[in-house]
Amino acid sequence: MADLDIYKSQGFGNLSGFGRAPALLIVDFTNGFNDPAQFGGGNIADAIARTAGLLSAARAALLPIVFTRVVYANDGSDHGVFCLKAPALRGLTESALSSQIVPELEPAPGEHVIRKTQPSAFFGTSLAGWLVGKGADTIIVTGCTTSGCVRASVIDAMSYNFRVIVASDGVGDRAMGPHEANLFDIGQKYADLLTCEEIEAHLNALQPAIA
Amino acid sequence: MADLDIYKSQGFGNLSGFGRAPALLIVDFTNGFNDPAQFGGGNIADAIARTAGLLSAARAALLPIVFTRVVYANDGSDHGVFCLKAPALRGLTESALSSQIVPELEPAPGEHVIRKTQPSAFFGTSLAGWLVGKGADTIIVTGCTTSGCVRASVIDAMSYNFRVIVASDGVGDRAMGPHEANLFDIGQKYADLLTCEEIEAHLNALQPAIA
Amino acid sequence: MADLDIYKSQGFGNLSGFGRAPALLIVDFTNGFNDPAQFGGGNIADAIARTAGLLSAARAALLPIVFTRVVYANDGSDHGVFCLKAPALRGLTESALSSQIVPELEPAPGEHVIRKTQPSAFFGTSLAGWLVGKGADTIIVTGCTTSGCVRASVIDAMSYNFRVIVASDGVGDRAMGPHEANLFDIGQKYADLLTCEEIEAHLNALQPAIA
Amino acid sequence: MADLDIYKSQGFGNLSGFGRAPALLIVDFTNGFNDPAQFGGGNIADAIARTAGLLSAARAALLPIVFTRVVYANDGSDHGVFCLKAPALRGLTESALSSQIVPELEPAPGEHVIRKTQPSAFFGTSLAGWLVGKGADTIIVTGCTTSGCVRASVIDAMSYNFRVIVASDGVGDRAMGPHEANLFDIGQKYADLLTCEEIEAHLNALQPAIA
Repeated sequence: MADLDIYKSQGFGNLSGFGRAPALLIVDFTNGFNDPAQFGGGNIADAIARTAGLLSAARAALLPIVFTRVVYANDGSDHGVFCLKAPALRGLTESALSSQIVPELEPAPGEHVIRKTQPSAFFGTSLAGWLVGKGADTIIVTGCTTSGCVRASVIDAMSYNFRVIVASDGVGDRAMGPHEANLFDIGQKYADLLTCEEIEAHLNALQPAIA
Repeated sequence: MADLDIYKSQGFGNLSGFGRAPALLIVDFTNGFNDPAQFGGGNIADAIARTAGLLSAARAALLPIVFTRVVYANDGSDHGVFCLKAPALRGLTESALSSQIVPELEPAPGEHVIRKTQPSAFFGTSLAGWLVGKGADTIIVTGCTTSGCVRASVIDAMSYNFRVIVASDGVGDRAMGPHEANLFDIGQKYADLLTCEEIEAHLNALQPAIA
Repeated sequence: MADLDIYKSQGFGNLSGFGRAPALLIVDFTNGFNDPAQFGGGNIADAIARTAGLLSAARAALLPIVFTRVVYANDGSDHGVFCLKAPALRGLTESALSSQIVPELEPAPGEHVIRKTQPSAFFGTSLAGWLVGKGADTIIVTGCTTSGCVRASVIDAMSYNFRVIVASDGVGDRAMGPHEANLFDIGQKYADLLTCEEIEAHLNALQPAIA
Repeated sequence: MADLDIYKSQGFGNLSGFGRAPALLIVDFTNGFNDPAQFGGGNIADAIARTAGLLSAARAALLPIVFTRVVYANDGSDHGVFCLKAPALRGLTESALSSQIVPELEPAPGEHVIRKTQPSAFFGTSLAGWLVGKGADTIIVTGCTTSGCVRASVIDAMSYNFRVIVASDGVGDRAMGPHEANLFDIGQKYADLLTCEEIEAHLNALQPAIA
């Protein structure tokens, strides 16, 4: 039996849908992850371009918007096991160019930027409480990498019982095998997969109700 | 460039190694996940058989041992988004045969059994504190599924800065594509992959020091 | 300067108010905490009586309702530091009479009961995610003890950015000094203090809007 | 019966003791909390002076050392319910003088500084994982305020099953009533109370073993 058929026969892959109040989470779209010589490559540049359009739609629809950056201390005081597995992460410090959000997606005032040291945007951060404070019940996720910090953030978002929508062309990875494999897992178990265009259509339809 | 070469060139895939004080975490090896008609199939039965040997070695080495089960309330009061994506999970109630740990791995008195409703063994559970209380610095992980609750638990274990060793033949999945893809991600970024036999050799070498 | 004046001069003690969607949290009103020979005494019996009225109002207003119980494993596998400070807690096992919710407040089907081993109702439990899943933005808190599990739960509820309303006569403690001191801290920094009657009036006013 | 007698008769107030590997946590000793015109007053200046000695002993004994600061975003993007209860907190931004650690306790390179927005040093921060990474099993706590961020941090530290030692003269509060009341609660239920001098004696005795 093909992998997809097994999941179908066991009842996975249903939709959880949009709630009433979405927020937008943009994971780790920083210069270092858009540079194939550092942590980038694959479809990440494309995913950033698609996210730019989605970000505009989210701003027009007045969604709460939050970005993440990986930031480690200059003196190494917060290096842990993740830095043993991938030592190059240590270069992502507060002022390093590599840890700044890419210019195409520069955060506007009032948009929240979360610093993190672990894969999930929720782990050891204020994100869950920030979303509660904004009254969000649905998290739209873009960012990179699909097989890393996006996947980890999606699991936590769903575990907190937010409905999760992953922008299938707004998430990117340095290598396409893991990208595809993780989209499969995410779609079967944790979140709904929609294109940026489909999500924008949903947000555009929300606009009158909010304005 | 092949996926693995990309990861290698960017500095992933290093070893984090064993610490001084390992614990054993066995994720969701319950009857329902060992039944191909429910959530099982693939290499799960094999992984359970391998885990039986590892469990014996862990007991001989006096490791702290913890199991997880997925358990939802009979009245549905704790159903959330995960149950929308995979509605069959709702049948995993306290007394359901499907949510009991498989007989081959029956927990002994003093071994901890954690009930959970989300993928990660850490999310919404006492696991992190339990491991701190036991003085563990390393988590050996077996269980199922590799692409689901094992993967999620491994990310959280590493995020808490435990060193993580995943038993590559002690974790199982209903479908082999996701199994392999997730072992790749785990080995590159979150944990070291060793066979049960290799882990047992490490534990056997520890024994004299502890006893 | 009196304590209250210091807090006033530094800008503490403001109201955070009700949000749009309250939930009711009833902390540890179990037989053992209503028995002066175990963990009870003081004004706990009175607080239970007041909570019965509030619970009726919450049910009539269709609020999400959640109870907590302290439950430790029969075999002691989850005893930790809290059990060193207060060893009598070890008797609160799944089937012990002392850890059952008091008959006056028996949970109805669909009302969620959370087992916990630490002071806060949020620590190592699914409570935060359960509240997100219910769309709650405000937590009304009753239970015991004011200086223990209520205080700890209130801090976490506020830290997750839920607005918190503590029922000043629906929370109880074995000793009145700590009860009063903790109500002071809570009111100055974490939550609004209202009587059960005041909260019931608020809930009664909500009813038409929901029904 | 006096409050203390009630606690004694119910089995509270036992010691949890030191473990093998202590770390030092210094909570919110920043300029704003050492200024009676802002959040300071009471015995906070004294507690800072005592902590300076303890910090020296901790450095000599090579303990992992971590400080916390309250830091909110300049643009208010992370203000939540705590800022409704105490609006003056909003002034504690990254570069504000009030949120810098007091000169007497300036962190040395490699000592970890955690930014937080909630009372507990653990909530929404990397502290738990940082302590696991350091192999700590015991947390020595000083800082301010006793009735606020110290109390909240102590509860979480114990909930994670770290043994907790609170420096009774190294913690301070703007008002002495809440200071004393919270020391009572902490000593009865969550941590052992020792003076800085007693803790220093313990650390000095550790030194030869570590060096």
